Amino acid sequence: MRSRTQVAIIGAGPAGLLLSQLLHTQGIDCVVLERQTQAHVEGRIRAGVLEPGTVALLEQAGVAGRLRREGLPHHGFRLALDGASFRVDMQDLTGRAVTVYGQTEVTHDLIAAHQARGAALVFQAADVALHDIAGDTPFVTYSQDGTAHRVDCDYIVGCDGYHGPSRASIPPDVLRVFERVYPFGWLGLLADVPPCDEELIYSNHPRGFALASMRSPTRSRYYVQVPLSEKLEDWPDERLWDELALRLGPDAAANMVRGPSIEKSIVPLRSFVAEPMRHGRLFLAGDAAHIVPPTGAKGLNLAASDVGLLAEGLAAYYREHNASGLEQYSARALSRVWMAERFSWWFTGLTHRFPDMDDFARRMQVAELNYIRASDHARRVLAENYVGLPMAYALG
Amino acid sequence: MRSRTQVAIIGAGPAGLLLSQLLHTQGIDCVVLERQTQAHVEGRIRAGVLEPGTVALLEQAGVAGRLRREGLPHHGFRLALDGASFRVDMQDLTGRAVTVYGQTEVTHDLIAAHQARGAALVFQAADVALHDIAGDTPFVTYSQDGTAHRVDCDYIVGCDGYHGPSRASIPPDVLRVFERVYPFGWLGLLADVPPCDEELIYSNHPRGFALASMRSPTRSRYYVQVPLSEKLEDWPDERLWDELALRLGPDAAANMVRGPSIEKSIVPLRSFVAEPMRHGRLFLAGDAAHIVPPTGAKGLNLAASDVGLLAEGLAAYYREHNASGLEQYSARALSRVWMAERFSWWFTGLTHRFPDMDDFARRMQVAELNYIRASDHARRVLAENYVGLPMAYALG
Repeated sequence: MRSRTQVAIIGAGPAGLLLSQLLHTQGIDCVVLERQTQAHVEGRIRAGVLEPGTVALLEQAGVAGRLRREGLPHHGFRLALDGASFRVDMQDLTGRAVTVYGQTEVTHDLIAAHQARGAALVFQAADVALHDIAGDTPFVTYSQDGTAHRVDCDYIVGCDGYHGPSRASIPPDVLRVFERVYPFGWLGLLADVPPCDEELIYSNHPRGFALASMRSPTRSRYYVQVPLSEKLEDWPDERLWDELALRLGPDAAANMVRGPSIEKSIVPLRSFVAEPMRHGRLFLAGDAAHIVPPTGAKGLNLAASDVGLLAEGLAAYYREHNASGLEQYSARALSRVWMAERFSWWFTGLTHRFPDMDDFARRMQVAELNYIRASDHARRVLAENYVGLPMAYALG
Repeated sequence: MRSRTQVAIIGAGPAGLLLSQLLHTQGIDCVVLERQTQAHVEGRIRAGVLEPGTVALLEQAGVAGRLRREGLPHHGFRLALDGASFRVDMQDLTGRAVTVYGQTEVTHDLIAAHQARGAALVFQAADVALHDIAGDTPFVTYSQDGTAHRVDCDYIVGCDGYHGPSRASIPPDVLRVFERVYPFGWLGLLADVPPCDEELIYSNHPRGFALASMRSPTRSRYYVQVPLSEKLEDWPDERLWDELALRLGPDAAANMVRGPSIEKSIVPLRSFVAEPMRHGRLFLAGDAAHIVPPTGAKGLNLAASDVGLLAEGLAAYYREHNASGLEQYSARALSRVWMAERFSWWFTGLTHRFPDMDDFARRMQVAELNYIRASDHARRVLAENYVGLPMAYALG
């Protein structure tokens, strides 16, 4: 089976789906190919903090109806040190707020919008392969239910995550990768209980980092930093609740409602960037090009920022034959990516306990947290990173 | 020979001399004991950037006449990355400026003021020893020209630097020390040539850090980061000028006037803090309690801040029998010390090349410098640290 489209998008995570939806509003034809089933894609439990820039893109894509009704505006968050916390008032410091709305919900809304308009969204596309990305006639092949398919296109966008075939299609001598592996992971718990606080709490505790987060007023998400050697079976719910109570401090513990976990997992933390984000007619977006540690919730937002730039560039190309947005995509996206990587790396370093930390390093964390508490300017820097840096900061 | 004073100050560096002068203005009697000769003390070449808070203390001490005439107000400085620089406008960002005026000149002015009023300032005091610091009748002994001396006092202040006897008099089980040794040093050159720029340039270059500084419009101070294994004899002036031209970038190099060095040395970089800064009737101030790497020029300013707090505390004690300032001294001083330690450690990390740096770490430096260039808020954080944090940030 052979077909033709303008843009072939690989991967139906939030990046690929959002891009497809944005291109649709511009009258640009595209196909989204996804290796997994719809149920698998919708079942992924990931981040849940949306920057205003991400919300604006979802609005622009016409998929923000439920988000507007159910999303929780968060005007601040708390930073805790050894169990005592202070608030960072984002709204006051930057005039902007973030929205708590699970990535699962974003994905669900995007898939529903695609299916409502009968968009070309293919699940269980096996053996996806990219061809002639450096030439003028790129195409993608895949198979479904034993049938071989070929999609000819103008451009391919790889939104297929770290393990997908897109980045792997770029010749190794072109690609430069940067990586940092952290010596710990996050043990996460999802439970249908009210959150312990109206806002998020990021806690630096001698026993390690903890995060109190939420998906809704009745669904809580908690994390504790653990060594990568930890086994899930050694963390029955009660042990995890006890640990959270210790690390988040007495105020949070007093308001914590315990309940059975509906999901529990350990994820490693990693920083990763691949350069460039374009090769010939292939563009990379989201996790296909970069991974951040989850501290500060930049992953989904960075993916949205990538596809926002890409949608703009493709629209200008198809509408006005102006390719400058596409030509600048890699440099502009990477400029934002590196600033978000820096923030995520710094925020991780500020709040986690590192195995090789000496007393001096610990005091540097304490001094920085005390400085942030004392200085409006320091809190404003943290807040502007947390809500998302202005597009104007990108240098590309 | 036995004498009595209210406050015995050990060390005639800028900290001890400034404290003595501040106490004099409050009518408090003190003696300053210095192991070295006057010529040696006046010959030390050290920092040269004074925060407004330090200038205010020198004014208060009545020794700012020449500083007002000869000091160079600096309203900003430059940060360079790979030879291209941008300016941090301190005046605009904080409403304050720093003053370039060599520590040598500060010391000279303070000694002149002491000698003009016939103050008790003893040079070549050998074998200085502290006694009964934990009791009610402390005293200091020393010898001079073969004569043994004893000074009874209410309080002893140790301004005798890292190697002096004061900190060593505190029992080891009371003292807690924090330390970080950096894997490089600064090779410095002093020359009677005009500076290459009106302001300082801090440069992050792949070959390592460089700093273009000055003491006056006709005297320049330059530094390059070198491995600690480097030997001075391998750095003839021409090699050092060549290296500076490379690391500071073409604009600075074009304006650089070369000349013979009048001083050249390699100093190691270190972070060090001793807690507490008070034990019984002994107070520590300046390098006796803490060392910062020179990046950001906090050493002298932190010493001045310490003695400013101490002078206030002692004045309240003698004037109103109010000991609260003395009781809070250690906690308040340490709160400021740790914030300055953090800044100096961070600014060193941002601008230097570390032997174990991988590509990711290098990109974190680049991203942070680009972020600082782009964000007013980030530049304001840097600037407020550079001009000196408000006393109100101290939590003690």
